[in-house]
Amino acid sequence: MLRRVDHVALAVSDLEASIEHYQRVWGLTLAHREIVADQGVEEAMFRLGDTYLQLVAPLSADTPVGRFIERRGEGLHHMAYQVDDIETALASARAHDLALVDDEPRAGSRNTRVAFVHPKTNHGVLVELVEIPPGIATDPVS
Amino acid sequence: MLRRVDHVALAVSDLEASIEHYQRVWGLTLAHREIVADQGVEEAMFRLGDTYLQLVAPLSADTPVGRFIERRGEGLHHMAYQVDDIETALASARAHDLALVDDEPRAGSRNTRVAFVHPKTNHGVLVELVEIPPGIATDPVS
Repeated sequence: MLRRVDHVALAVSDLEASIEHYQRVWGLTLAHREIVADQGVEEAMFRLGDTYLQLVAPLSADTPVGRFIERRGEGLHHMAYQVDDIETALASARAHDLALVDDEPRAGSRNTRVAFVHPKTNHGVLVELVEIPPGIATDPVS
Repeated sequence: MLRRVDHVALAVSDLEASIEHYQRVWGLTLAHREIVADQGVEEAMFRLGDTYLQLVAPLSADTPVGRFIERRGEGLHHMAYQVDDIETALASARAHDLALVDDEPRAGSRNTRVAFVHPKTNHGVLVELVEIPPGIATDPVS
């Protein structure tokens, strides 16, 4: 059902400082940057092979990512997997009794449709299911 | 400097239960399994695109992954990046004042050479640098 790791998301406090860190220390090149008001974050993406490293910074303290950083500090936040059909993936997650954050898909960045699955029934890992719209190049290696 | 996400590691308490979960719920196929006594873990790897999802379970409570789970619960543990030359990558990390867990490369699973970089100077993310020995197929998409 999972086709590919679309991105791995890292929660950061200061987006500018973190972008600079990943460019300077790890030699990555910024591929995309976007404010996703619905999720209360600004995100920055670096391409690595057929996936992305995504930095997510909270737009304010009173957001899910803001509370995550307050509670646990900066660090690994969630795994995002590309799926072919997000309704099918959500139905499958529901059929396996996974706790869903989103009962229905919603708009994500890069014109994707996304839905989050809660970590509590997934061995502690917050999962984002991502359906990529047709015509969007996602995989430069294929 | 970073060539590819070699794997994303998830700390789990019960390797059998977690393997079963990722097979049943997420439809993944087990690609590799190995005890890495040096790191105090047993690991299981699932292929996803050009990277792996890795489950790491502690061999005992008194190991780094055992203490991680005791402190934070199951969840995302570290990012592993393939590099061409691990000595060069370590020298670069040192030159950028990153705190190193390993001053010198050591043996990893799959006959790799690895070195860990501490999360405290890397925005909360534990990083494993991985040098793949020649002749090991790591990237079925290329």
